Amino acid sequence: VDQQGRRRSLFLGSWIAGKKEVKKETKLGMAYKKDDNFGEWYSEVVVNSEMIEYYDISGCYILRPWAMEIWELLKEFFDAEIKKLKLKPYYFPLFVTENVLQKEKDHIEGFAPEVAWVTKSGKSDLEAPIAIRPTSETVMYPYFSKWIRSHRDLPLKCNQWCNVVRWEFSNPTPFIRSREFLWQEGHTVFATKEEADEEVLQILELYRRIYEEFLAVPVSKGRKSEMEKFAGGLYTTSVEAFIPNTGRGIQGATSHCLGQNFAKMFDITFENEKGERSMVWQNSWAYTTRSIGVMVMTHGDDKGLVLPPKVAPIQVIVIPVPFKDADTTGIKGACESAVYTLNQAGIRADLDARENYSPGWKYSQWEMKGVPLRIEIGPKDLANKQVRIVRRDNGTKVDIPSTDLVEQVRVLLDGFQANLLETAKAKRDACIVIISTWDEFIAALNDKKLILAPWCDEEEVEKDVKARTKGELGAAKTLCTPFDQPDLPSGTVCFASGKPAQKWSFWGRSY
Amino acid sequence: VDQQGRRRSLFLGSWIAGKKEVKKETKLGMAYKKDDNFGEWYSEVVVNSEMIEYYDISGCYILRPWAMEIWELLKEFFDAEIKKLKLKPYYFPLFVTENVLQKEKDHIEGFAPEVAWVTKSGKSDLEAPIAIRPTSETVMYPYFSKWIRSHRDLPLKCNQWCNVVRWEFSNPTPFIRSREFLWQEGHTVFATKEEADEEVLQILELYRRIYEEFLAVPVSKGRKSEMEKFAGGLYTTSVEAFIPNTGRGIQGATSHCLGQNFAKMFDITFENEKGERSMVWQNSWAYTTRSIGVMVMTHGDDKGLVLPPKVAPIQVIVIPVPFKDADTTGIKGACESAVYTLNQAGIRADLDARENYSPGWKYSQWEMKGVPLRIEIGPKDLANKQVRIVRRDNGTKVDIPSTDLVEQVRVLLDGFQANLLETAKAKRDACIVIISTWDEFIAALNDKKLILAPWCDEEEVEKDVKARTKGELGAAKTLCTPFDQPDLPSGTVCFASGKPAQKWSFWGRSY
Repeated sequence: VDQQGRRRSLFLGSWIAGKKEVKKETKLGMAYKKDDNFGEWYSEVVVNSEMIEYYDISGCYILRPWAMEIWELLKEFFDAEIKKLKLKPYYFPLFVTENVLQKEKDHIEGFAPEVAWVTKSGKSDLEAPIAIRPTSETVMYPYFSKWIRSHRDLPLKCNQWCNVVRWEFSNPTPFIRSREFLWQEGHTVFATKEEADEEVLQILELYRRIYEEFLAVPVSKGRKSEMEKFAGGLYTTSVEAFIPNTGRGIQGATSHCLGQNFAKMFDITFENEKGERSMVWQNSWAYTTRSIGVMVMTHGDDKGLVLPPKVAPIQVIVIPVPFKDADTTGIKGACESAVYTLNQAGIRADLDARENYSPGWKYSQWEMKGVPLRIEIGPKDLANKQVRIVRRDNGTKVDIPSTDLVEQVRVLLDGFQANLLETAKAKRDACIVIISTWDEFIAALNDKKLILAPWCDEEEVEKDVKARTKGELGAAKTLCTPFDQPDLPSGTVCFASGKPAQKWSFWGRSY
Repeated sequence: VDQQGRRRSLFLGSWIAGKKEVKKETKLGMAYKKDDNFGEWYSEVVVNSEMIEYYDISGCYILRPWAMEIWELLKEFFDAEIKKLKLKPYYFPLFVTENVLQKEKDHIEGFAPEVAWVTKSGKSDLEAPIAIRPTSETVMYPYFSKWIRSHRDLPLKCNQWCNVVRWEFSNPTPFIRSREFLWQEGHTVFATKEEADEEVLQILELYRRIYEEFLAVPVSKGRKSEMEKFAGGLYTTSVEAFIPNTGRGIQGATSHCLGQNFAKMFDITFENEKGERSMVWQNSWAYTTRSIGVMVMTHGDDKGLVLPPKVAPIQVIVIPVPFKDADTTGIKGACESAVYTLNQAGIRADLDARENYSPGWKYSQWEMKGVPLRIEIGPKDLANKQVRIVRRDNGTKVDIPSTDLVEQVRVLLDGFQANLLETAKAKRDACIVIISTWDEFIAALNDKKLILAPWCDEEEVEKDVKARTKGELGAAKTLCTPFDQPDLPSGTVCFASGKPAQKWSFWGRSY
């Protein structure tokens, strides 16, 4: 039984034990702690918070509303932003022929081992196997070649929201590494390299905003090494996050300049203003449902998920706390009124009026689901015309006059969002170690650090570092060369080769 | 070469001939007329209007922005409506194991011949073939069985927007019949049949609104015969449209009550208020990108597409008409100002300021693309502070003072939308023939009519009618039994069997 199978059975067990009668008595708890067993903790959080259900095909997962509503909020932001940049919606087929898929050699080498092939329909064999898109460069670009004739057809800006399939065999993990995932993929075509370069960074900035402004996950913008760049592209930029618990970097999203390589293979040319034929410049860029997993790993704690307010499907959960002999009707009315007032102000608030669960059980469940603020209204609150607000991130409680509700909730949500990012940034920054020698590098790697090292920028040296650090936990590699470069005094040498250093790069193990 | 191949080459030819230099001189025209060769006309419209690009896998099509923006507008409406009904967003995997797919026998019998199978990843054979979802009942319901324990877990209401694959071999047609298509699929679970029955009709009404309010396509709500109902379900309701040119009915969308059949197969039960185990009641319902094709067939004419304003990506195209010696700058300014004013009022207006095309060429192109209103601004209009507005549906022209622009455009767009539906309804109604005998039936069928016939409602009789009408154009079948039933005097007999008639049903050939 693989990781999925194990987790599924475990969840099935806890879930049968947790049915109604028992739930009333039991505290909804986590079996694993984040610092003790990160892998099991992560699986437990995504399942118990009802983001994910494990599926009976390994590496495929069911995204439940608690995940999909976050995905929809991210999509709403990003789609509006790219429409401002004149991106147009397209939908290209899921399928691609073997012949077209193999047109760009470096590209197919990168993806071939993970391509899923359809060979049959009904009981008949297909004439030739058909691939399921692992990404859509080869699906789209033959048609770009048809559509683009003149400089007036440029820029061409396509985006699609869709599923892609990469049949990976190593460590399937919900959101982070799955055989099918959801993403947007942007594919753009320009007359000049300058325009392509500019867009690469515009999109990268949107990806940074998704991570930092929405998911409250600090990321570094940078450029990938030649080894790590997109197969067939010219250069790759990315936003890179870091998971302190595992000491692993994680690629958050990538914005590639493809240069003219695909244009050559797919014959994408245009007639410029002077009447000459020129080759186009292309970009492609994508972010995926992985972003949700990075957020879970970054903010979650031993009580479960912690959601940044900007993406929380419910930002405020209101829970009536009716003690014996209390004015139950009055309390329920006050709760309904609070939810109504918050909803009217555009705040995503909901009421938990279920009568078969105790307030304490509800607190635990909504903590598990990571809702940023909990409002409790009991007899005392009713009498004092106040509500009690409890923060999910640090547990602080504050009593607020009902008249100040909207204003105070706004302040608290903003503070919560800012605090999550600051806390995550402080933790990430505490992991950054600047090294200059091989011994320091190995020590930092063993210590699960995010390593910033002076590097000669030679592919052979990166290969050598990979070979020398191979092991159970996986080899070290470059994560990115951050745009934000510290001083590099002349005479600085590469930590691995001793040759003159060209740049500072982030190194480490990665997801 | 299949239909796709032929069309693609033809398009490629016209498109090469149509490049810049030539375009200036050439009227952008349609080679086929709707009444002369409907099939070729349809292919030409969807390609030339830039909704569709034929793809190099038969039965797969590229949806371009002119189609996708319509799909997004429909989605925006429908998704908001079902969220009011408490539907939640889910995403279930694209893949399903053979074992699970085959659990409901009638269901799999209906879909098996069209299922695409993945058998390889990279160069390795999979241990067992994996199916691509043709629909997601069998993907979802094992998990419904896990999630539902108590009456408190009901209703469960899932919706997903996704792609599905049905590897059909007959007559692939853009939008109408394709091997991959986009849809939403709703899957809901209730404690009682009454709740399920009620929702079936709520959703059907939303589908009617998509067709009639948005796409301006008249549809009949009704119930499918036992032969035509969803494989494995209890009963199927649908909205049915009709294409006068081909005399074919076309299923617009379906809302199924699945009854308890899938619940039995997948063991979906709950503990009711009395502590007893009960079986759930289920619905599933879907509409697809086919709806766009039905709209094209209904409204298009020999100049190309005609778009209902509610779904037109551009509702008003503004075209400067600078005659010799005219105040070009003033005209351009007036055009920009008109677009700005309309956009500010929430009207989707755009400016065609291209300098390498003549106004006449632009008129033709935007007519081809079906934009409802064209605004022309020339020297005379500038002088008189007016604009000329031309309607796509009937070509009428009207001069409007610039000060009344927004108000008048609103009136015109509303009238346009209403007129499209009325015209289509009149055409459809003119095709309805009420018959009572077999001879009348055959005459009406040969005459491409939409036949309303008294029927005994026996499956054997429908099979018999199919057998007796087999031929090159396809057999006749029931389209639906409309909810809106004419009087059925006692003693009325079935047109086909002579047995007592139970109901009036629509019969005809269909897509």
